[in-house]
Amino acid sequence: MVISHSHLNNSPHLRTKTLGTSPSAHHLAQVRQVKLLATGKYLPKNQVTAEQLGEKLGIEAAWIEKKSGVKVRHFVQDETASQMGAMAAKKALETAGLSLNDIDCIVCTSSVPEQSIPCTAALVQKQLGGESSGIATFDINSTCLSFVVGLDTLSYLVDAGRYSRVLLVASEIALAVDWNNRETSTLFGDGAAAAIISKTDPQEGSKIICSRQETYSEGAELSQCLAGGNRYHPREYSDNLDRFLFKMQGRAIYRLASQILPGFLERLLQPAGLTLEEIDFVIPHQASLMAMGLIRKGLNIPEEKWMVIAHNHGNTIAASIPMTLHEAIQQDKIHRGDRILLLGTSAGFSVGGMVLEY
Amino acid sequence: MVISHSHLNNSPHLRTKTLGTSPSAHHLAQVRQVKLLATGKYLPKNQVTAEQLGEKLGIEAAWIEKKSGVKVRHFVQDETASQMGAMAAKKALETAGLSLNDIDCIVCTSSVPEQSIPCTAALVQKQLGGESSGIATFDINSTCLSFVVGLDTLSYLVDAGRYSRVLLVASEIALAVDWNNRETSTLFGDGAAAAIISKTDPQEGSKIICSRQETYSEGAELSQCLAGGNRYHPREYSDNLDRFLFKMQGRAIYRLASQILPGFLERLLQPAGLTLEEIDFVIPHQASLMAMGLIRKGLNIPEEKWMVIAHNHGNTIAASIPMTLHEAIQQDKIHRGDRILLLGTSAGFSVGGMVLEY
Repeated sequence: MVISHSHLNNSPHLRTKTLGTSPSAHHLAQVRQVKLLATGKYLPKNQVTAEQLGEKLGIEAAWIEKKSGVKVRHFVQDETASQMGAMAAKKALETAGLSLNDIDCIVCTSSVPEQSIPCTAALVQKQLGGESSGIATFDINSTCLSFVVGLDTLSYLVDAGRYSRVLLVASEIALAVDWNNRETSTLFGDGAAAAIISKTDPQEGSKIICSRQETYSEGAELSQCLAGGNRYHPREYSDNLDRFLFKMQGRAIYRLASQILPGFLERLLQPAGLTLEEIDFVIPHQASLMAMGLIRKGLNIPEEKWMVIAHNHGNTIAASIPMTLHEAIQQDKIHRGDRILLLGTSAGFSVGGMVLEY
Repeated sequence: MVISHSHLNNSPHLRTKTLGTSPSAHHLAQVRQVKLLATGKYLPKNQVTAEQLGEKLGIEAAWIEKKSGVKVRHFVQDETASQMGAMAAKKALETAGLSLNDIDCIVCTSSVPEQSIPCTAALVQKQLGGESSGIATFDINSTCLSFVVGLDTLSYLVDAGRYSRVLLVASEIALAVDWNNRETSTLFGDGAAAAIISKTDPQEGSKIICSRQETYSEGAELSQCLAGGNRYHPREYSDNLDRFLFKMQGRAIYRLASQILPGFLERLLQPAGLTLEEIDFVIPHQASLMAMGLIRKGLNIPEEKWMVIAHNHGNTIAASIPMTLHEAIQQDKIHRGDRILLLGTSAGFSVGGMVLEY
């Protein structure tokens, strides 16, 4: 797999980083003593098989299972994003043995908000019964990487003691799906995931070792939904349907990701003195099963270290990585002390990753 | 002005904070050695006077000037939010004597994105010519408080050395304005503001002294736009117009803000050992001139310490606070070493504030 030198040369990060085989002082200052206390997941009640979806779309179920690989996904019936987020949050709180009173910040890390105003985190606070709690709320958005960026960003505030326990929630409803496009409409699923982080107790080893995000907006048009913000007015909907639909150029995204990922992983791991072989388990974004498989092989990551849930969840956008993390914990695939890599790509085009000691 | 005891008692923050007249150890750990290097502003070419707006809406210009107090605002003609954001960013870079290569993270802090996918910060990166730069991009959203929350949040990453120089951009187009509602349609203006932050040089005094955000989602419905996210599909536009419009209950918001603000300021300032008298200058959110005046008087803040730009900008949503900050710097109202309070309310309902030594 070829590393794109134009990307490397243009990266302002690389020029300022000292690369070496042992962790740099610059890197050590960035280790965050932050622990993932608990996770939670919520799937909508309405489960849709490849057969049921095929019937709706007029496609053979076999085509869906072969091409998208998604045998089962869930679609919302009457659930809202904030309701799903609150359900996932309640499970995380229960697992952690905590109540909402123990949380002092709620950050929603979804790709698309529930409403344009206010932020979804405020709506999740309300769904959790915290409407007079004063708990700080805001949203962080980097499309499919929102959870990784949110966890990364908030970990600095938790490490500094600004917040004691932060509740991160990613809740997604793929409303802009283009049902006339086989490639994308068979890929997505709805659902929510939540995670609670706190400062690590001095006698424990949990920490965030390193994290990194790179955006190459040359790929901004490769996956986009032009409307939904302040660029196009909803009154244009009936005359300009395409602007309101999610459009993705799968192959071009895969090409760009393949160019950037090897160098990205080096820039993520090397300053921390780590190699990919020293990673115990990888939680990848569940973009599409086919692309995930190719990328895993291209990066030489063994199958047993690579968690896949897309076959029975679909691509749940920003909820995909925390859902996969939740499933890895639930299925006993990762244990305290393990070195975990969260890795994904997103619209933007962005690449993001984090190594944490769980 | 009465402090709402129910709010104070329900605040998890208050219970865990030690209040005193001198800065607590907990507080000192939260001072960030971060400097505001430069700011920038962009206003759309299309300037609209109260007369012109009155003619369009069939309202007397005198009513607009008296009720909203906004004599002049700007509306976009052909500008997009990312274009305006890039223009403001260029001015900030120029003022700082920096180029895009010196920036390693772009955070967009607008209330509403330009498109639903990808995040606006990626689009700003592209407008700035950084499409192959790899500069990290993401959005932070807490409606009108987005800039304050973004500055607050990113300052921890800059202080920790994760990013060297962060470009914050807030760019707003009030697309969801209800033109049939006099109260709101005469209030808003479009525009963008940008700010660049870096770690403070050891010999300099610039720092963020304290910051705080509280959300009371009991007020989530007092200012909202129900559509634009994944709750309502754009196909519903023509049959459910109201869901697609920004709706605000001004009086109820003012009542809630008046209840919360005095206690909020105490919870913001007291842990830092500060009183309101020790603040040199206040940069308030330019919500509405009438409410701003009442709140200033209620908090006993002298008029000469209080910056107003709403009369010739309107309420530019999340761009309002950084634009006001920019104007205060440009108009020589604040100087290095001054203790500045950024203060605002937002949909959510949230209250946010920050004291920085400029």
